[in-house]
Amino acid sequence: MNAIEIIKKKRDGGKLTSREIEFMISNFTAGIIPDYQFSAFLMAAFIRGLDKSETSYLTESMLNSGKIIDLSAIEGSKIDKHSTGGVGDKTSLILTPVVAAAGVKVPMISGRGLGHTGGTLDKLESIPGFRTDLNLSKYKSVLKKCGAVMIGQTKDIAPADKLIYALRDVTATVESIPFITASIMSKKLAEGIEGLVLDVKTGSGAFMKKQSDALELAASLGNTAKAFDKKVIAFITDMNQPLGNYIGNWLEVYESILVLKNEIKNDLYELSVTLAGAMIYLGGKSKNIVEGKKIAAELISNGKAFEKFTEITELQGGDVSFLLKPEKYPASKYRKEILSDKTGFIKTIDAYRIGMTSVMLGAGRLKKEDKIDPKAGIIFYPKIGMKIKKGDLIAEIFTDNKDVLDAASDSIKNSVEISREKTPPPKLVKKKIEF
Amino acid sequence: MNAIEIIKKKRDGGKLTSREIEFMISNFTAGIIPDYQFSAFLMAAFIRGLDKSETSYLTESMLNSGKIIDLSAIEGSKIDKHSTGGVGDKTSLILTPVVAAAGVKVPMISGRGLGHTGGTLDKLESIPGFRTDLNLSKYKSVLKKCGAVMIGQTKDIAPADKLIYALRDVTATVESIPFITASIMSKKLAEGIEGLVLDVKTGSGAFMKKQSDALELAASLGNTAKAFDKKVIAFITDMNQPLGNYIGNWLEVYESILVLKNEIKNDLYELSVTLAGAMIYLGGKSKNIVEGKKIAAELISNGKAFEKFTEITELQGGDVSFLLKPEKYPASKYRKEILSDKTGFIKTIDAYRIGMTSVMLGAGRLKKEDKIDPKAGIIFYPKIGMKIKKGDLIAEIFTDNKDVLDAASDSIKNSVEISREKTPPPKLVKKKIEF
Repeated sequence: MNAIEIIKKKRDGGKLTSREIEFMISNFTAGIIPDYQFSAFLMAAFIRGLDKSETSYLTESMLNSGKIIDLSAIEGSKIDKHSTGGVGDKTSLILTPVVAAAGVKVPMISGRGLGHTGGTLDKLESIPGFRTDLNLSKYKSVLKKCGAVMIGQTKDIAPADKLIYALRDVTATVESIPFITASIMSKKLAEGIEGLVLDVKTGSGAFMKKQSDALELAASLGNTAKAFDKKVIAFITDMNQPLGNYIGNWLEVYESILVLKNEIKNDLYELSVTLAGAMIYLGGKSKNIVEGKKIAAELISNGKAFEKFTEITELQGGDVSFLLKPEKYPASKYRKEILSDKTGFIKTIDAYRIGMTSVMLGAGRLKKEDKIDPKAGIIFYPKIGMKIKKGDLIAEIFTDNKDVLDAASDSIKNSVEISREKTPPPKLVKKKIEF
Repeated sequence: MNAIEIIKKKRDGGKLTSREIEFMISNFTAGIIPDYQFSAFLMAAFIRGLDKSETSYLTESMLNSGKIIDLSAIEGSKIDKHSTGGVGDKTSLILTPVVAAAGVKVPMISGRGLGHTGGTLDKLESIPGFRTDLNLSKYKSVLKKCGAVMIGQTKDIAPADKLIYALRDVTATVESIPFITASIMSKKLAEGIEGLVLDVKTGSGAFMKKQSDALELAASLGNTAKAFDKKVIAFITDMNQPLGNYIGNWLEVYESILVLKNEIKNDLYELSVTLAGAMIYLGGKSKNIVEGKKIAAELISNGKAFEKFTEITELQGGDVSFLLKPEKYPASKYRKEILSDKTGFIKTIDAYRIGMTSVMLGAGRLKKEDKIDPKAGIIFYPKIGMKIKKGDLIAEIFTDNKDVLDAASDSIKNSVEISREKTPPPKLVKKKIEF
């Protein structure tokens, strides 16, 4: 077996065997197959595609490039959630304590924000003292103590993914459903979970703009998880506008606190409860998703979910006083209100642009190395279909960087389209797929 | 303009502009675009293809990566020939002196043998003292003095080709007609010629096994040359059996001497005269190819072509006494006769295998670094359709390496298929295309 023959086979549209894929991934990870050969392979696989079983083999090889965490010593079902990312998507911060409070373990490993989307780790780290870089033994002990833990990728988990992603990024091979699938699933499967809830987003602020692409990705993710005997439920959800109203790291923690304290019941609340309901069901603590959602809602209204959030925060080194008194969090140097100069109904929202505006304000990264400002961000009020009058508040922006105030204001104003007729609001959960 | 966007465009089947192709080639050659990006580009271009104009842009960019030789100071038409390579293909050694003797200049730059095919440079260098590494000023002076010159690729000519070929070789992107076209044509166009005769081979000993592929390559080469205002005639010729009977470097020089001295009139004579005839016609020294062939035949029979060959040899440092008395050339340590163990008609000949057997005997290379033995090789008698009796001589093999004698004998025996019925001999010139 040699790399050139395998590349040739895929180049000509052939189907690769498990051994051939394993040969490519393990030898690339070991530095034996050079970048220039692997990138030719990536392009051939991108154009010719990988079928269901090839995608599973790829996932397996990437999974086996690292450690699989053994959680067998911890009792109970372990269920996680993965979202493909969007703007204002902070459901992890809410559903993790909810589901843990329901008695289902949540051993979550998340990522950082890049481009227009935020990352759970950055949001958590906006809580002073919160550590997401726990080692595996600390990870297990937090999980055991409180039923949930939220950390970042460690070097031991699927190291092939990091190497492959870096190469995809510079060879125009990012948007490949099989490679996206293997990248996500190799990391999630390494957690040693029994089930996974998928939130595949579609719309102006999602990676998959078209619903058909989102469905394709959901099917690929679900089938791959299924091939590894995991229970999976996938939701296709709307990302044509930010989820909730807060965008930016601490701002998103703040909105999560409001939801967990049962103080607001918006789209963010609705989606968090839905995803949590599905996790509770997969974890065997409800008969179906509907019952799971009821349990989730109750754990919010009786204060147990918020209590669990403070517990997780404390175990991971975070200063709980900020959760209890969020008003004491330091404020940004500049705050600016953006007012509507038109009257009408909100027709479209460019969620991608709002995400990029929050990056401009300091809340995100364009490159991995960029620093973020936890305080920066946007409170964004419009929702599609909403009536708005000239002079109404569209958004408040927060930043320490005076130079970007005007550009950010213009950008937010331009991301909203107002029309005379009322547009119906988009359906939040577009589809549910059980595998 | 950036590399990732250009790769993406080709990945998705887009048509690249002249500026985009120039950007990729010049930045890769300058070391600005790294190997791993260029190999993704190669694979995308391999699978999606490059059309006629993209192939011309590619050729132009590769041509412009180096020097274009200025032969305007040398009077007369300059015409060259390119063959896609085969086994026993030594027509360059014959047609170059023939065409030069007809008054058409032949500024030939050739390559070395690799794999089953031989190379003109290796054959010439089997003549003691013959130098193929002349610099450009010596190249011009030899051409001016005797009307022909035969050298190897210099560093100044199309340096992009060498870099790109090295990467294609290790990324499963060799068999791409646009890249093969650009590789050949960028070097030939650098010679400053006005016309080119193409010998595109098809059959068991050719790179293009199928005639349809040979036709496609001929069309691509011809159209590209045409786009640069060159006169072109392409021949699709048979390579289902070795051309002539001698395979191996000095053995091929020896057979060329026999043809040039008008001592044999075989398929090699026929093809050499045909190609020479086309070159004489393109060079304006005959009204048509038929008349060109007549001139070529006459220059052989009146001894002028052979005289020209000695002249070129002398100017390039070769010892002419070996051409005049070839019997004084040192002999191989071992000579073995291979006899037929069957009676019947020659049905097929595996020319590829015969080429690889000559490599085994020491006459060729598997890797660029391998040394060759100029004396080694095969005199191979069968031709398709020929009657053969048990005990008849099939071949004589020559080598200094005793260890390979048995394997080489077996290999030669197995490369010939003998049947009871007579197979018609293949047509030597299958097609002629004038562009």
